[in-house]
Amino acid sequence: MSRFPQVTAFSGDADTIRVVGHRGARGILPENSLIGFDFALSIGVDLLEFDVLLTRDDIPVITHNHEFHDSAVRGPDGAFLNGEHSRVASLTISEIERLDIGRLNTETEYGRRFPDQAQMDGVRVPRLSELLQLVSQPRYASACLMLELKSDPDLAHDAAARERIVSVVCDEVHRAGMADRTLLHSFDWALLAECRRQAPDIPLSFLTQLQENEHDAGEDSSIFVTPDFGNPDTSVPDEVSKAGGSLWCPHFTELDENSLAHARELGLAVAVWTVNDPDDIEAMIDLKVDAIVTDYPGRVQQRLSERGFCWRR
Amino acid sequence: MSRFPQVTAFSGDADTIRVVGHRGARGILPENSLIGFDFALSIGVDLLEFDVLLTRDDIPVITHNHEFHDSAVRGPDGAFLNGEHSRVASLTISEIERLDIGRLNTETEYGRRFPDQAQMDGVRVPRLSELLQLVSQPRYASACLMLELKSDPDLAHDAAARERIVSVVCDEVHRAGMADRTLLHSFDWALLAECRRQAPDIPLSFLTQLQENEHDAGEDSSIFVTPDFGNPDTSVPDEVSKAGGSLWCPHFTELDENSLAHARELGLAVAVWTVNDPDDIEAMIDLKVDAIVTDYPGRVQQRLSERGFCWRR
Repeated sequence: MSRFPQVTAFSGDADTIRVVGHRGARGILPENSLIGFDFALSIGVDLLEFDVLLTRDDIPVITHNHEFHDSAVRGPDGAFLNGEHSRVASLTISEIERLDIGRLNTETEYGRRFPDQAQMDGVRVPRLSELLQLVSQPRYASACLMLELKSDPDLAHDAAARERIVSVVCDEVHRAGMADRTLLHSFDWALLAECRRQAPDIPLSFLTQLQENEHDAGEDSSIFVTPDFGNPDTSVPDEVSKAGGSLWCPHFTELDENSLAHARELGLAVAVWTVNDPDDIEAMIDLKVDAIVTDYPGRVQQRLSERGFCWRR
Repeated sequence: MSRFPQVTAFSGDADTIRVVGHRGARGILPENSLIGFDFALSIGVDLLEFDVLLTRDDIPVITHNHEFHDSAVRGPDGAFLNGEHSRVASLTISEIERLDIGRLNTETEYGRRFPDQAQMDGVRVPRLSELLQLVSQPRYASACLMLELKSDPDLAHDAAARERIVSVVCDEVHRAGMADRTLLHSFDWALLAECRRQAPDIPLSFLTQLQENEHDAGEDSSIFVTPDFGNPDTSVPDEVSKAGGSLWCPHFTELDENSLAHARELGLAVAVWTVNDPDDIEAMIDLKVDAIVTDYPGRVQQRLSERGFCWRR
């Protein structure tokens, strides 16, 4: 089977397990920030995971939640957003560029989850185009993108909204010449079906989450847009394969040896999210997944080295 | 009392405690590397601590131990140094520039101390001149340097060797126009006396360590060059003051409220090293030291923010 080059970039082998920087390197630097992406790339972590939403004026921006929360976002007055949750889809790019995402708010549950994250001022929500420009630099020629399309719950069943985000995002990826270095990645399988229709040249990566977990604390859960695989006879990798996926991305607690082997038989690469605890990292190395999505890329590099694995070829 | 501007930069006040990046940001990136220094500066940690030794051909290089250890140094063949401990003073700059300091060796005790440190290839021992050039960039105009002069134990009693390192280092600092942004810092008070003689325009920072501690695991201890303050009637801050110090830098376990207050009466700023554990960071904030030297600058920033302190003015 001939493979998309970016799918190869996310695939392991006998002595390779890939490291994917989650929202850049959320454990160390503000999530979904250019400085975080640059950090991950500069330590040799070529694979970046990040989240994309559309502004009111249809600019794709890199941010996780469909509303800006008080846990990490400050307004032009320098104060955390103080309860009001502003929808990304209702703000223009110029309004969003006045926000500062450089500091976690340790008064919030979410803000206490990454105690080593730097506290900075003047960090903006990046546009997708800025990240595409960053990875266009020759020194980052091996970088590949796991571009997660996020859903606003108010728009999740709105086919026109789906068509619009897919169209705008794929257009930017194509214009930047990054179609062979990008995976389109989502919990929202309806969005991925739209991607397949509009951009069959860009491979798809299917996220799954069967139950709520600690990952959801303090941020928008994705469980409401993920297909319900409650029937124990359903094989998730079979569903991913039928939907045209190249990657399957289960939460790491929801993968076992059998489902991994079955995914491999189907020709899928398997990337697990979000693996931060040293014991969990070891367990995923034991399983020999293709790729580990982590907030602490240096930590995963060190565990892989110790076990004799590399993450680049 | 008029103060050197760099001493002010290392001094706290009612709502400021300074953060000093230890060897750059050793918890996150290879120690004493340009990428580590750049990381610390780019997250708003303006104050850098690092170690300087002379090569055989009298080039000041930034590295901690007087011998290159197998815990983090690989030879041109890519293998860790495998037991042989090469003295910095017996190697030329071109030999040193063939070494790679990008990865900790997790087979060694020292190599297991920083489990989040990135694993990189092609990271060189920097020259002092390269760091001086980095901080000369306009965007790092507020950076100040805590330049630690290290002693080779074989040369510790060699006055000519002392004169040579002080002369070469001070000359580079002066030529780079960094005399008002640098502190000369050492455990070796004989070296600092020589600094005072040769460069009275650059303030001095006196390190002390009364007993061995966990900080010494796997690296050259400095205890052999530090004055012995075994007599309980000796006041260390008085000795620092008499020796012409502007800063006193005790190990954080060896500072208490009384000695801090006494140092302040003497006009000394007090910077504690090397504070990484969250409880220890809190204790140093409680004491209200002037500056905290840490391998995890983001962690200290976050604890300071939470307690209502800033680290820059």
